[in-house]
Amino acid sequence: MTDPTAPVLRQDHDGVTTLTLNRPGSFNALSEEMLEALQAELARLADDGGVRCVVIAAEGRAFCAGHDLKQMRANPDKAYYQTLFARCGAVMQAIVELPVPVIARVQGLATAAGCQLVASCDLAVAARSARFAVSGINAGLFCSTPAVALSRNVARKRAMELLFTGEFIDAETARDWGLVNRIADDAALDTAVAELTTSICAKSAVAVRTGKAMFQRQLQMPLDEAYAFAGEVMACNMMAEDAGEGIDAFIEKRAPQWRDR
Amino acid sequence: MTDPTAPVLRQDHDGVTTLTLNRPGSFNALSEEMLEALQAELARLADDGGVRCVVIAAEGRAFCAGHDLKQMRANPDKAYYQTLFARCGAVMQAIVELPVPVIARVQGLATAAGCQLVASCDLAVAARSARFAVSGINAGLFCSTPAVALSRNVARKRAMELLFTGEFIDAETARDWGLVNRIADDAALDTAVAELTTSICAKSAVAVRTGKAMFQRQLQMPLDEAYAFAGEVMACNMMAEDAGEGIDAFIEKRAPQWRDR
Amino acid sequence: MTDPTAPVLRQDHDGVTTLTLNRPGSFNALSEEMLEALQAELARLADDGGVRCVVIAAEGRAFCAGHDLKQMRANPDKAYYQTLFARCGAVMQAIVELPVPVIARVQGLATAAGCQLVASCDLAVAARSARFAVSGINAGLFCSTPAVALSRNVARKRAMELLFTGEFIDAETARDWGLVNRIADDAALDTAVAELTTSICAKSAVAVRTGKAMFQRQLQMPLDEAYAFAGEVMACNMMAEDAGEGIDAFIEKRAPQWRDR
Repeated sequence: MTDPTAPVLRQDHDGVTTLTLNRPGSFNALSEEMLEALQAELARLADDGGVRCVVIAAEGRAFCAGHDLKQMRANPDKAYYQTLFARCGAVMQAIVELPVPVIARVQGLATAAGCQLVASCDLAVAARSARFAVSGINAGLFCSTPAVALSRNVARKRAMELLFTGEFIDAETARDWGLVNRIADDAALDTAVAELTTSICAKSAVAVRTGKAMFQRQLQMPLDEAYAFAGEVMACNMMAEDAGEGIDAFIEKRAPQWRDR
Repeated sequence: MTDPTAPVLRQDHDGVTTLTLNRPGSFNALSEEMLEALQAELARLADDGGVRCVVIAAEGRAFCAGHDLKQMRANPDKAYYQTLFARCGAVMQAIVELPVPVIARVQGLATAAGCQLVASCDLAVAARSARFAVSGINAGLFCSTPAVALSRNVARKRAMELLFTGEFIDAETARDWGLVNRIADDAALDTAVAELTTSICAKSAVAVRTGKAMFQRQLQMPLDEAYAFAGEVMACNMMAEDAGEGIDAFIEKRAPQWRDR
Repeated sequence: MTDPTAPVLRQDHDGVTTLTLNRPGSFNALSEEMLEALQAELARLADDGGVRCVVIAAEGRAFCAGHDLKQMRANPDKAYYQTLFARCGAVMQAIVELPVPVIARVQGLATAAGCQLVASCDLAVAARSARFAVSGINAGLFCSTPAVALSRNVARKRAMELLFTGEFIDAETARDWGLVNRIADDAALDTAVAELTTSICAKSAVAVRTGKAMFQRQLQMPLDEAYAFAGEVMACNMMAEDAGEGIDAFIEKRAPQWRDR
């Protein structure tokens, strides 16, 4: 059991690890404390062969309102900010590089670096009432690091509109634009997240990890290099016991028995 | 005339070459035989100055169900798989590099490498009842090579949802996400494909080939390099007889008489 | 005051500079004269610390019909075309590189390089009756340079459909595909543009300029490089007086008083 007062709570259930941002009073702002806790939990998960997928959730009325502005103002020092944004970028990249899929479970608000957190996850499910913004521009601080993640999720004119106006979009718009995968009535949010985690946990762990490791990497390659890489990855995947079992089961029209679960 | 029992049938009609996957009994699986036949046909078409555009179609109830899983299981050898995926990647890249536009005509199912085939074409028209999935994950084999093509067609969270869940999307969703251009009632599928081929065949062949050759290449360049390349391509295009004739016809409000058709 | 017969008119009002294409009789074709005028105005704006955002508008029934085909035909010389397309590419890149956001205000038609102009702007607002095409293919001239901008705005199969068929899409489709941000009834077009300019002018100038300078650059970087760059940019932004004031105002729930406006 983790300390119930910790900034990030970890729960494990049938291969699904839920990391819950636990500072509802500050709308789960990404303070130093919160970023450190997230970084530590993600580092532990990276080495945990038993986890099948990760959910990033949040306590309270907001998913995450971005950086802790009071803490930032209390440290008016460029080196402090460089360290802060480097850590935040490291957390976001740790999500991208985690060996298993990461799903954002979004209620209430996801603003600035909170919206970046949603964009950095592999998948996202939002409550119908959730709203999204990259609103730093309203406080004189352009959401530069959130822009990195956002612009890799939605078309560029849409990203620029959000970044320059600071305006909110609702969950339906976020889904139409590709920022979230699914929306659910607020009361059915956990059910909708569970549909994804159940689907992923029913798959071969080696196949899921193979996919997570290759997907983002190939995106950054030219086409010929991406194919060379993906072909090699897929040949290795074919040599895994689970692929043999999965294909045999498919041919024999029976459920597969994965080796490692 | 091609052999009517060949894995891929070729028909030529008024500049439109239709390659028809002809193994309906196996849902047109991309067996070694099928990939070899496709590769050979595409190589011939690359050297055929008379072809104006290519349609990839399929016999039977499914467009293409991906790799031939039985054949793969019968060859449990890494070198075999490396060769297989390299050949498959070569076929997909031959479509991208073909000197003329390639249109997928999709009915029934397009799954795994079958979905990759749709994504690799320049344009795609689907029957309203068609369905799409990258479902290798259900058999313990993450669709790594299909991911390369899919993630260059649709937003990344949508690609990841398909890849990790293995779930189907219908034709309308595929169109909303950019995987196919148009959908048509099943009975009107040929008409919808013919609208595109007729439109393309009415254009100057040199202009169409110019566009096909430059489009995908510039996509992989930074903006300044892409403009330098595209500007040079366009200057060359302007020196072609057809551009002069086309512009004169436009100015004179008459139909152009292309040189080479 | 600019000369009212100039090819491009400049108006400044409360930090918003409007550049109006002023050759309605030729549908504001991008003639040598027009490109030179645009290039000169953009160069002046790049050095103008007082401008907060730029609107590119057009006189008459069409936004812009692309290159001046008569002028091109009158100069059947490859070096001429190379210079012409290089200048056009320089204008489009000057928009991307301008230190402030650029908004296209689109009525009537935006075709070929006119559609490229819309795609090159950071944001775009279109009249409901506006239509878009990259129709050079109809005149034997594939829209290679427009393809560069278009394919960085919309999904690739959609871009290819437009480029190979030369067909029009309406404003609603352009919005659904991400080519324009907002559409408005024709009579309300100025109001819709003003909503964006007013929103941007209410922000801190240093924050807006920071965002414009970083957004497009980071798009071309791999993820780790983009985060390193964006983190450094954001640390610098935090050291600006406006960020301090903006955050204090946010915390104190009052309107910020930006330093430089």
